[in-house]
Amino acid sequence: MSFFPLQVYAERIARAQQLCKDKGISGLIIGTGAQLAYLTGSWASTHERLTCLVIPASGTPKFILPAVDRAELPQTPIPELDVEVEGWVDGKNPHELAVEPFRNELRGTIGVGQDLTADHLLKLQALLPNATFVLASQVLSELFIRKDEAEIEQLRHAGAAIDRVHARVPELLSEGRSEREVAADIEKLILEEHRAVDFIIVGSQENGANPHHDFSDRVLATGDMVVVDIGGTYGHGYHSDCTRTYIVGGPEALTNTKALSLYEVLFAAQKAAVDAVRPGMTAKALDAIARTPIAEAGFGEQFIHRTGHGIGLSTHEEPFIIEGNDLVLEEGMCFSIEPGIYLEGEVGARIEDIVVVTADGCERLNKQPRILR
Amino acid sequence: MSFFPLQVYAERIARAQQLCKDKGISGLIIGTGAQLAYLTGSWASTHERLTCLVIPASGTPKFILPAVDRAELPQTPIPELDVEVEGWVDGKNPHELAVEPFRNELRGTIGVGQDLTADHLLKLQALLPNATFVLASQVLSELFIRKDEAEIEQLRHAGAAIDRVHARVPELLSEGRSEREVAADIEKLILEEHRAVDFIIVGSQENGANPHHDFSDRVLATGDMVVVDIGGTYGHGYHSDCTRTYIVGGPEALTNTKALSLYEVLFAAQKAAVDAVRPGMTAKALDAIARTPIAEAGFGEQFIHRTGHGIGLSTHEEPFIIEGNDLVLEEGMCFSIEPGIYLEGEVGARIEDIVVVTADGCERLNKQPRILR
Repeated sequence: MSFFPLQVYAERIARAQQLCKDKGISGLIIGTGAQLAYLTGSWASTHERLTCLVIPASGTPKFILPAVDRAELPQTPIPELDVEVEGWVDGKNPHELAVEPFRNELRGTIGVGQDLTADHLLKLQALLPNATFVLASQVLSELFIRKDEAEIEQLRHAGAAIDRVHARVPELLSEGRSEREVAADIEKLILEEHRAVDFIIVGSQENGANPHHDFSDRVLATGDMVVVDIGGTYGHGYHSDCTRTYIVGGPEALTNTKALSLYEVLFAAQKAAVDAVRPGMTAKALDAIARTPIAEAGFGEQFIHRTGHGIGLSTHEEPFIIEGNDLVLEEGMCFSIEPGIYLEGEVGARIEDIVVVTADGCERLNKQPRILR
Repeated sequence: MSFFPLQVYAERIARAQQLCKDKGISGLIIGTGAQLAYLTGSWASTHERLTCLVIPASGTPKFILPAVDRAELPQTPIPELDVEVEGWVDGKNPHELAVEPFRNELRGTIGVGQDLTADHLLKLQALLPNATFVLASQVLSELFIRKDEAEIEQLRHAGAAIDRVHARVPELLSEGRSEREVAADIEKLILEEHRAVDFIIVGSQENGANPHHDFSDRVLATGDMVVVDIGGTYGHGYHSDCTRTYIVGGPEALTNTKALSLYEVLFAAQKAAVDAVRPGMTAKALDAIARTPIAEAGFGEQFIHRTGHGIGLSTHEEPFIIEGNDLVLEEGMCFSIEPGIYLEGEVGARIEDIVVVTADGCERLNKQPRILR
């Protein structure tokens, strides 16, 4: 993995600490995962041995890791940061180390990383029985949820990378090829443009009606509608994620008029939602804007998932563009807008772009045409 | 993934429910991961959308999953089990569904799966503020920690599979080849014998002194000591994990007398620990048996990790053979015995076998010679 300049991580940690102070949080315990990578650059793997960054509201942050993993540290920015490193050996209790800065304020609030697993969290809770544990993202959402310019630049590159893959998808979708063969070609293309492949969905006809289908041995025929939803990991660990729906042999080969009218409804809904994005609106209002035209066309029951999800160092993160979410969208938030319509056993379609909220609307990070191709 | 006969999962779920009743536990909420696979065969992926099996002490268990993932169910044993399936659509609150069976016993104890992440666990806790949450493995350790004959058979096959790979490692370790080239060959061999590669460590000379090194561009020379620690996923999802230490060019090429004496100490310690395994002894006593001869030879500070870890549907699980663990070993427990000695910057060695506790000792599941080769 590559990294931002050191100063970026130093500032993020300082900001997290300042936010704890401002909000009366005793501190943070961030386990492995995207939030740890955001703060330290470390993608240490999750395992039964505790690895975490502890940021008390006051005092020096510390990075706790199994001593056997110490050799991986020089491959991260951590040794250069103003963070105390504590390696623990098997047989010692790393959870005691993690709660040590909070021993004197037993009734405080501790923010934990969202990916911390129960085997660690329950042990931390047992050691601080009167503390309140909350998600770090809940108390410090502005820390993770709004992307700064350097992050947006990474996401722009990732978007352009997956766009270059989509640009070549039409040539792969020809009569007689299987979804699996197409997916194998796409895998190579993603790897040419990214650090890693995250996922590949090639869902033709009835397989396109299952939003989480990956790919199968189904063979493509001219006129088939094919959902292609693909993503990879780019540069410093930021993700791409983009969906287009194609017709094998080109749109003129589509004879199924129901599928065509379905796509027209979907296109209008996705475009309306993208065009409607403004800072100050709620996530649920945006969800409704994508959902309403689909429901009015009689496909409401066939749009079976949320409109979108945040994206950054993880592929799915806050903000979720979903019914009931009162979160107010702000400049710098990045998320997908991806309505879909799924006729079970028949055909499905989805269009997905990543957008970043700007001062007066949004910037689309995916620029391949959204019309049927 | 392949599966055990349906009856195996039905019996495991019934046994979990009975254990809850017997121990006064209100029930279990098991998120994704090895414990869910143990109970249902499902390897559903972990994500921000909750997937879990809820087993109340009385009543029908339910499997809760995002509606968008429903299409994956027929590829698991779940539809054939006596389990109610509840798909939830985006915008609904899956945590409410998960705690619903426990609404009438607010002060009860709930066992959760060890891999459940904080973003789910904290929401479940908020909905049942007076319940006590504990690790399911802690209250029902006999459910997960002792393997039955069908599981041991899977682990035997996995052990034999990785043994066949180790049998071919000596021919790969020749002067002038890099660790990376050797690892690429091993990857192919593991895949010939397994469903997936879990990890590959090829640590020569000073790289062998880092227990979590994977492999590098270091080029092998005759007489180098090389730690090869490899594992894969077999059959129904059970793992292999075996380490041998080799000398490039054969043991006669080893001119470093310190490395040779180190290996002799290690060999004796690993063998002593394997030979000492008995049901009724504690995990910490077994750890001490591996540790004592190494410490007596002056290498105590260079054996920097625990003696072993349980293995099954996850590569690292209970029981941990570690200082301070009072757990009593019982027939059917499976774990590694893998002492190592690491001279930082110089050379390292480790020997690892998986063993299963029998009525009067243990069965080694790895049978390649442990002498230097």
